[in-house]
Amino acid sequence: MRALKSMVELVPEIVVLRWGHRPRDFRVTAHVGLTARALGASGLILSDIQDFDLQRNILNVVKNWGGSFFVQVGRPWKETVQEWKKNRGAIVHLTMYGENLETSDVLDRIRKSSKNILLLVGSQKVPAEFYSRDISDFNVAVGSQPHSEVAALAVFLDRLYKGKELKRKFEDAKLSVMPSRRGKRVIENEKSCEKCASGP
Amino acid sequence: MRALKSMVELVPEIVVLRWGHRPRDFRVTAHVGLTARALGASGLILSDIQDFDLQRNILNVVKNWGGSFFVQVGRPWKETVQEWKKNRGAIVHLTMYGENLETSDVLDRIRKSSKNILLLVGSQKVPAEFYSRDISDFNVAVGSQPHSEVAALAVFLDRLYKGKELKRKFEDAKLSVMPSRRGKRVIENEKSCEKCASGP
Repeated sequence: MRALKSMVELVPEIVVLRWGHRPRDFRVTAHVGLTARALGASGLILSDIQDFDLQRNILNVVKNWGGSFFVQVGRPWKETVQEWKKNRGAIVHLTMYGENLETSDVLDRIRKSSKNILLLVGSQKVPAEFYSRDISDFNVAVGSQPHSEVAALAVFLDRLYKGKELKRKFEDAKLSVMPSRRGKRVIENEKSCEKCASGP
Repeated sequence: MRALKSMVELVPEIVVLRWGHRPRDFRVTAHVGLTARALGASGLILSDIQDFDLQRNILNVVKNWGGSFFVQVGRPWKETVQEWKKNRGAIVHLTMYGENLETSDVLDRIRKSSKNILLLVGSQKVPAEFYSRDISDFNVAVGSQPHSEVAALAVFLDRLYKGKELKRKFEDAKLSVMPSRRGKRVIENEKSCEKCASGP
Protein backbone atom coordinates (compact mmCIF):
# COMPACT_ATOMS: atom_id res chain seq x y z
CA MET A 1 0.00 0.00 0.00
CA ARG A 2 3.04 2.25 -0.22
CA ALA A 3 2.90 5.33 -2.40
CA LEU A 4 -0.71 4.82 -3.38
CA LYS A 5 -1.13 8.25 -4.87
CA SER A 6 -4.28 10.25 -4.52
CA MET A 7 -5.99 10.65 -7.89
CA VAL A 8 -8.26 13.35 -6.56
CA GLU A 9 -7.01 16.90 -6.31
CA LEU A 10 -8.77 19.07 -3.78
CA VAL A 11 -8.80 22.80 -4.44
CA PRO A 12 -8.61 25.15 -2.61
CA GLU A 13 -6.30 24.06 0.15
CA ILE A 14 -7.87 24.32 3.59
CA VAL A 15 -6.25 24.52 6.98
CA VAL A 16 -8.44 24.37 10.07
CA LEU A 17 -7.70 26.65 13.00
CA ARG A 18 -9.32 25.33 16.16
CA TRP A 19 -9.90 28.06 18.70
CA GLY A 20 -11.00 27.56 22.30
CA HIS A 21 -9.82 24.03 22.87
CA ARG A 22 -9.88 22.88 26.46
CA PRO A 23 -8.01 19.72 27.34
CA ARG A 24 -11.08 18.44 29.20
CA ASP A 25 -12.91 18.63 25.87
CA PHE A 26 -10.24 16.55 24.28
CA ARG A 27 -12.63 14.38 22.34
CA VAL A 28 -14.47 17.18 20.56
CA THR A 29 -11.23 18.72 19.32
CA ALA A 30 -10.02 15.27 18.31
CA HIS A 31 -13.22 14.95 16.25
CA VAL A 32 -12.51 18.34 14.66
CA GLY A 33 -9.00 17.25 13.73
CA LEU A 34 -9.93 13.83 12.40
CA THR A 35 -12.84 15.25 10.43
CA ALA A 36 -10.57 17.91 8.94
CA ARG A 37 -8.14 15.21 7.83
CA ALA A 38 -10.73 12.73 6.55
CA LEU A 39 -12.67 15.33 4.58
CA GLY A 40 -9.80 16.96 2.77
CA ALA A 41 -8.12 19.64 4.90
CA SER A 42 -4.31 19.80 4.93
CA GLY A 43 -3.78 20.42 8.59
CA LEU A 44 -5.04 21.46 12.00
CA ILE A 45 -3.74 24.40 13.99
CA LEU A 46 -4.70 24.17 17.64
CA SER A 47 -4.31 27.79 18.59
CA ASP A 48 -2.93 29.17 21.85
CA ILE A 49 -2.87 25.86 23.71
CA GLN A 50 -0.15 23.25 23.68
CA ASP A 51 -1.96 19.95 23.93
CA PHE A 52 0.68 17.47 22.90
CA ASP A 53 -1.51 14.47 23.74
CA LEU A 54 -4.05 15.62 21.21
CA GLN A 55 -1.36 16.27 18.65
CA ARG A 56 0.13 12.81 19.18
CA ASN A 57 -3.25 11.13 18.94
CA ILE A 58 -4.10 12.72 15.63
CA LEU A 59 -0.64 12.11 14.22
CA ASN A 60 -0.95 8.46 15.19
CA VAL A 61 -4.01 8.26 12.98
CA VAL A 62 -2.04 9.88 10.16
CA LYS A 63 0.78 7.40 10.66
CA ASN A 64 -1.56 4.43 10.37
CA TRP A 65 -4.10 5.68 7.86
CA GLY A 66 -1.84 7.72 5.59
CA GLY A 67 -1.77 11.14 3.98
CA SER A 68 0.24 14.19 4.94
CA PHE A 69 -1.94 15.99 7.48
CA PHE A 70 -0.09 18.27 9.91
CA VAL A 71 -0.98 19.30 13.47
CA GLN A 72 0.47 22.45 14.97
CA VAL A 73 -0.20 23.40 18.59
CA GLY A 74 0.16 26.46 20.74
CA ARG A 75 0.65 29.35 18.35
CA PRO A 76 -1.39 32.50 19.14
CA TRP A 77 -4.36 32.61 16.79
CA LYS A 78 -3.72 36.21 15.72
CA GLU A 79 -0.28 35.37 14.44
CA THR A 80 -1.69 32.62 12.27
CA VAL A 81 -4.44 34.85 10.93
CA GLN A 82 -2.04 37.69 10.16
CA GLU A 83 0.34 35.40 8.36
CA TRP A 84 -2.49 33.88 6.37
CA LYS A 85 -3.73 37.30 5.30
CA LYS A 86 -0.23 38.38 4.32
CA ASN A 87 -0.05 35.39 2.00
CA ARG A 88 -3.40 36.43 0.49
CA GLY A 89 -5.37 33.50 1.85
CA ALA A 90 -9.05 33.78 2.72
CA ILE A 91 -10.30 33.49 6.29
CA VAL A 92 -13.62 31.68 6.65
CA HIS A 93 -15.27 31.63 10.06
CA LEU A 94 -17.82 28.92 10.71
CA THR A 95 -20.56 30.31 12.94
CA MET A 96 -24.29 29.80 13.35
CA TYR A 97 -24.72 33.59 13.03
CA GLY A 98 -23.19 33.83 9.56
CA GLU A 99 -24.58 33.60 6.04
CA ASN A 100 -26.54 30.43 5.43
CA LEU A 101 -24.59 27.92 3.35
CA GLU A 102 -27.76 26.71 1.65
CA THR A 103 -29.81 29.87 1.09
CA SER A 104 -27.11 32.44 0.36
CA ASP A 105 -24.44 32.64 -2.34
CA VAL A 106 -21.61 32.60 0.19
CA LEU A 107 -20.08 29.36 -1.08
CA ASP A 108 -19.93 30.71 -4.63
CA ARG A 109 -18.25 33.85 -3.39
CA ILE A 110 -15.71 31.84 -1.44
CA ARG A 111 -14.98 29.75 -4.54
CA LYS A 112 -14.63 32.86 -6.70
CA SER A 113 -12.09 34.35 -4.30
CA SER A 114 -9.77 31.58 -5.56
CA LYS A 115 -7.79 31.58 -2.39
CA ASN A 116 -6.60 28.95 -0.03
CA ILE A 117 -8.65 28.98 3.13
CA LEU A 118 -7.93 29.23 6.82
CA LEU A 119 -11.11 27.89 8.39
CA LEU A 120 -11.80 29.19 11.90
CA VAL A 121 -13.61 26.66 14.03
CA GLY A 122 -14.50 27.96 17.46
CA SER A 123 -16.05 26.39 20.49
CA GLN A 124 -18.59 27.89 22.88
CA LYS A 125 -17.93 31.60 22.56
CA VAL A 126 -15.39 33.14 20.23
CA PRO A 127 -13.84 36.63 20.48
CA ALA A 128 -16.10 39.31 18.98
CA GLU A 129 -13.46 40.31 16.47
CA PHE A 130 -13.76 36.92 14.72
CA TYR A 131 -16.85 38.36 12.99
CA SER A 132 -15.16 41.57 11.84
CA ARG A 133 -13.48 42.43 8.57
CA ASP A 134 -10.19 42.62 10.40
CA ILE A 135 -10.30 38.87 10.86
CA SER A 136 -12.83 37.03 8.73
CA ASP A 137 -13.53 37.42 5.03
CA PHE A 138 -16.62 35.25 5.30
CA ASN A 139 -18.85 34.23 8.20
CA VAL A 140 -20.60 31.02 7.19
CA ALA A 141 -23.46 29.22 8.93
CA VAL A 142 -24.31 25.58 8.38
CA GLY A 143 -27.83 26.39 9.41
CA SER A 144 -28.69 29.01 12.01
CA GLN A 145 -29.31 26.59 14.84
CA PRO A 146 -27.00 25.68 17.69
CA HIS A 147 -25.38 22.35 16.98
CA SER A 148 -21.77 21.26 16.56
CA GLU A 149 -18.59 22.66 15.12
CA VAL A 150 -17.69 19.13 14.02
CA ALA A 151 -20.91 18.89 12.02
CA ALA A 152 -20.48 22.36 10.54
CA LEU A 153 -16.92 21.60 9.51
CA ALA A 154 -17.97 18.32 7.86
CA VAL A 155 -20.81 19.81 5.82
CA PHE A 156 -18.71 22.79 4.78
CA LEU A 157 -15.87 20.57 3.51
CA ASP A 158 -18.25 18.18 1.79
CA ARG A 159 -19.95 21.01 -0.04
CA LEU A 160 -16.85 22.95 -0.92
CA TYR A 161 -15.20 19.86 -2.36
CA LYS A 162 -18.49 18.60 -3.85
CA GLY A 163 -18.03 15.16 -2.38
CA LYS A 164 -14.72 14.55 -4.15
CA GLU A 165 -12.98 14.40 -0.78
CA LEU A 166 -14.67 11.05 -0.11
CA LYS A 167 -13.04 9.51 -3.20
CA ARG A 168 -9.48 10.19 -2.13
CA LYS A 169 -6.87 7.59 -1.40
CA PHE A 170 -4.44 8.37 1.40
CA GLU A 171 -0.80 7.92 0.52
CA ASP A 172 1.43 5.55 2.43
CA ALA A 173 -1.35 4.10 4.54
CA LYS A 174 -0.56 1.15 6.76
CA LEU A 175 -4.25 0.50 7.09
CA SER A 176 -7.15 1.04 4.75
CA VAL A 177 -10.74 -0.08 4.55
CA MET A 178 -12.38 -1.97 1.75
CA PRO A 179 -15.96 -0.63 1.74
CA SER A 180 -18.44 -3.44 2.31
CA ARG A 181 -22.16 -4.00 2.58
CA ARG A 182 -21.58 -6.24 5.59
CA GLY A 183 -18.84 -6.60 8.17
CA LYS A 184 -15.46 -4.93 8.43
CA ARG A 185 -12.68 -5.37 5.92
CA VAL A 186 -9.38 -3.80 6.86
CA ILE A 187 -6.36 -4.11 4.60
CA GLU A 188 -2.93 -4.05 6.25
CA ASN A 189 -0.41 -3.06 3.59
CA GLU A 190 -0.99 -5.51 0.79
CA LYS A 191 -2.45 -8.20 2.92
CA SER A 192 -6.17 -8.48 3.45
CA CYS A 193 -6.94 -8.78 7.13
CA GLU A 194 -10.46 -9.95 7.72
CA LYS A 195 -11.82 -8.68 10.95
CA CYS A 196 -15.32 -9.31 9.76
CA ALA A 197 -17.93 -8.97 12.42
CA SER A 198 -20.18 -11.06 10.20
CA GLY A 199 -19.66 -12.42 6.73
CA PRO A 200 -20.93 -10.64 3.63
CA MET B 1 -42.25 34.11 16.48
CA ARG B 2 -45.02 31.76 17.63
CA ALA B 3 -46.32 29.11 15.28
CA LEU B 4 -43.88 30.00 12.54
CA LYS B 5 -44.56 26.91 10.44
CA SER B 6 -41.89 25.09 8.61
CA MET B 7 -42.41 25.40 4.85
CA VAL B 8 -39.94 22.64 4.17
CA GLU B 9 -41.04 19.05 4.43
CA LEU B 10 -38.28 16.55 5.10
CA VAL B 11 -38.85 13.01 3.86
CA PRO B 12 -38.09 10.35 5.01
CA GLU B 13 -38.40 10.79 8.74
CA ILE B 14 -35.19 9.99 10.58
CA VAL B 15 -34.64 9.08 14.21
CA VAL B 16 -31.09 8.78 15.50
CA LEU B 17 -30.19 5.97 17.86
CA ARG B 18 -27.01 6.77 19.75
CA TRP B 19 -25.26 3.67 20.96
CA GLY B 20 -22.30 3.56 23.34
CA HIS B 21 -22.77 6.85 25.14
CA ARG B 22 -20.64 7.31 28.22
CA PRO B 23 -21.53 10.14 30.55
CA ARG B 24 -17.87 11.23 30.58
CA ASP B 25 -18.22 11.76 26.83
CA PHE B 26 -21.21 13.95 27.40
CA ARG B 27 -20.20 16.57 24.89
CA VAL B 28 -19.81 14.26 21.91
CA THR B 29 -23.27 12.79 22.45
CA ALA B 30 -24.64 16.31 22.94
CA HIS B 31 -23.14 17.17 19.55
CA VAL B 32 -24.80 14.10 18.04
CA GLY B 33 -28.16 15.15 19.46
CA LEU B 34 -27.94 18.80 18.48
CA THR B 35 -26.72 17.92 15.00
CA ALA B 36 -29.58 15.47 14.57
CA ARG B 37 -32.07 18.18 15.55
CA ALA B 38 -30.49 20.99 13.51
CA LEU B 39 -30.14 18.91 10.35
CA GLY B 40 -33.61 17.47 10.21
CA ALA B 41 -33.99 14.37 12.37
CA SER B 42 -37.12 13.98 14.49
CA GLY B 43 -35.53 12.69 17.63
CA LEU B 44 -32.66 11.09 19.50
CA ILE B 45 -32.78 7.78 21.29
CA LEU B 46 -29.93 7.39 23.74
CA SER B 47 -29.93 3.63 24.06
CA ASP B 48 -29.32 1.60 27.21
CA ILE B 49 -28.14 4.50 29.38
CA GLN B 50 -30.27 6.92 31.34
CA ASP B 51 -28.44 10.23 31.13
CA PHE B 52 -31.06 12.71 32.24
CA ASP B 53 -28.62 15.64 32.24
CA LEU B 54 -27.98 15.10 28.58
CA GLN B 55 -31.69 14.78 27.88
CA ARG B 56 -32.43 17.98 29.78
CA ASN B 57 -29.68 19.88 28.01
CA ILE B 58 -30.90 18.98 24.54
CA LEU B 59 -34.52 19.63 25.46
CA ASN B 60 -33.52 23.06 26.73
CA VAL B 61 -32.20 23.84 23.28
CA VAL B 62 -35.51 22.65 21.80
CA LYS B 63 -37.43 24.85 24.25
CA ASN B 64 -35.48 27.93 23.23
CA TRP B 65 -34.84 27.31 19.56
CA GLY B 66 -38.10 25.60 18.61
CA GLY B 67 -39.23 22.52 16.73
CA SER B 68 -40.54 19.24 18.08
CA PHE B 69 -37.43 17.13 18.58
CA PHE B 70 -37.73 14.34 21.15
CA VAL B 71 -35.07 12.73 23.35
CA GLN B 72 -35.61 9.27 24.79
CA VAL B 73 -33.09 7.72 27.17
CA GLY B 74 -32.33 4.29 28.56
CA ARG B 75 -34.24 1.87 26.35
CA PRO B 76 -32.30 -1.25 25.27
CA TRP B 77 -31.17 -0.77 21.68
CA LYS B 78 -32.50 -4.14 20.53
CA GLU B 79 -36.01 -3.27 21.58
CA THR B 80 -35.90 -0.09 19.53
CA VAL B 81 -34.50 -1.89 16.49
CA GLN B 82 -37.08 -4.68 16.71
CA GLU B 83 -39.93 -2.22 17.01
CA TRP B 84 -38.61 -0.21 14.08
CA LYS B 85 -38.38 -3.31 11.90
CA LYS B 86 -41.90 -4.39 12.86
CA ASN B 87 -43.17 -1.04 11.64
CA ARG B 88 -41.32 -1.55 8.34
CA GLY B 89 -38.75 1.17 8.90
CA ALA B 90 -35.23 0.94 7.51
CA ILE B 91 -32.18 0.64 9.72
CA VAL B 92 -29.12 2.53 8.49
CA HIS B 93 -25.86 2.05 10.34
CA LEU B 94 -23.22 4.75 9.93
CA THR B 95 -19.80 3.12 9.94
CA MET B 96 -16.45 3.76 8.29
CA TYR B 97 -16.50 0.12 7.09
CA GLY B 98 -19.72 0.46 5.11
CA GLU B 99 -20.52 1.39 1.51
CA ASN B 100 -19.07 4.73 0.50
CA LEU B 101 -21.70 7.46 0.37
CA GLU B 102 -19.96 9.13 -2.56
CA THR B 103 -18.76 6.27 -4.72
CA SER B 104 -21.56 3.71 -4.28
CA ASP B 105 -25.29 3.86 -4.99
CA VAL B 106 -26.21 3.28 -1.36
CA LEU B 107 -28.00 6.60 -0.94
CA ASP B 108 -30.19 5.90 -3.97
CA ARG B 109 -31.08 2.49 -2.61
CA ILE B 110 -31.96 3.98 0.76
CA ARG B 111 -34.17 6.55 -0.94
CA LYS B 112 -35.85 3.88 -3.05
CA SER B 113 -36.69 1.85 0.03
CA SER B 114 -39.17 4.66 0.81
CA LYS B 115 -39.03 3.96 4.47
CA ASN B 116 -38.52 6.05 7.52
CA ILE B 117 -35.05 5.55 8.94
CA LEU B 118 -33.59 4.58 12.25
CA LEU B 119 -30.02 5.80 12.01
CA LEU B 120 -27.55 3.91 14.20
CA VAL B 121 -24.71 6.11 15.38
CA GLY B 122 -22.13 4.25 17.43
CA SER B 123 -19.06 5.33 19.28
CA GLN B 124 -15.71 3.53 19.54
CA LYS B 125 -16.65 -0.08 18.98
CA VAL B 126 -20.15 -1.29 18.24
CA PRO B 127 -21.49 -4.84 18.66
CA ALA B 128 -20.61 -7.07 15.69
CA GLU B 129 -24.26 -7.74 14.96
CA PHE B 130 -24.80 -4.08 13.98
CA TYR B 131 -23.28 -5.00 10.59
CA SER B 132 -25.50 -8.02 10.03
CA ARG B 133 -28.76 -8.37 8.14
CA ASP B 134 -30.50 -9.08 11.42
CA ILE B 135 -29.93 -5.49 12.44
CA SER B 136 -28.93 -3.13 9.63
CA ASP B 137 -30.44 -2.80 6.18
CA PHE B 138 -27.59 -0.56 5.07
CA ASN B 139 -24.07 0.05 6.35
CA VAL B 140 -23.02 3.49 5.15
CA ALA B 141 -19.57 5.10 5.27
CA VAL B 142 -18.98 8.82 5.03
CA GLY B 143 -15.54 8.03 3.75
CA SER B 144 -13.52 5.04 4.87
CA GLN B 145 -11.28 6.93 7.26
CA PRO B 146 -11.55 7.17 11.04
CA HIS B 147 -13.10 10.50 11.95
CA SER B 148 -16.24 11.41 13.84
CA GLU B 149 -19.77 10.11 14.21
CA VAL B 150 -20.92 13.73 14.47
CA ALA B 151 -19.36 14.53 11.10
CA ALA B 152 -20.74 11.37 9.51
CA LEU B 153 -24.23 12.11 10.80
CA ALA B 154 -24.10 15.68 9.49
CA VAL B 155 -22.97 14.75 5.99
CA PHE B 156 -25.47 11.90 5.77
CA LEU B 157 -28.39 14.14 6.73
CA ASP B 158 -27.26 16.95 4.44
CA ARG B 159 -27.03 14.59 1.50
CA LEU B 160 -30.20 12.67 2.17
CA TYR B 161 -32.22 15.88 2.50
CA LYS B 162 -30.25 17.57 -0.33
CA GLY B 163 -29.62 20.67 1.76
CA LYS B 164 -33.31 21.38 2.29
CA GLU B 165 -32.84 20.81 6.03
CA LEU B 166 -30.91 24.09 6.22
CA LYS B 167 -33.89 26.07 4.93
CA ARG B 168 -36.28 25.00 7.65
CA LYS B 169 -37.89 27.27 10.18
CA PHE B 170 -38.34 25.84 13.65
CA GLU B 171 -41.82 26.26 15.08
CA ASP B 172 -42.46 28.11 18.30
CA ALA B 173 -38.90 29.31 18.70
CA LYS B 174 -38.14 31.76 21.48
CA LEU B 175 -34.85 32.54 19.79
CA SER B 176 -33.81 32.60 16.19
CA VAL B 177 -30.89 33.93 14.23
CA MET B 178 -30.99 36.40 11.38
CA PRO B 179 -28.11 35.29 9.14
CA SER B 180 -25.57 38.08 8.73
CA ARG B 181 -22.33 38.78 6.96
CA ARG B 182 -20.98 40.38 10.14
CA GLY B 183 -21.79 40.12 13.83
CA LYS B 184 -24.55 38.25 15.62
CA ARG B 185 -28.22 38.99 15.21
CA VAL B 186 -30.52 37.10 17.54
CA ILE B 187 -34.26 37.63 17.45
CA GLU B 188 -36.18 37.09 20.68
CA ASN B 189 -39.79 36.46 19.77
CA GLU B 190 -40.78 39.41 17.61
CA LYS B 191 -38.17 41.74 18.98
CA SER B 192 -34.77 42.07 17.38
CA CYS B 193 -32.10 41.73 19.97
CA GLU B 194 -28.81 43.02 18.66
CA LYS B 195 -25.90 41.30 20.27
CA CYS B 196 -23.64 42.32 17.46
CA ALA B 197 -20.03 41.70 18.14
CA SER B 198 -19.29 44.27 15.46
CA GLY B 199 -21.60 46.13 13.09
CA PRO B 200 -22.24 45.00 9.53
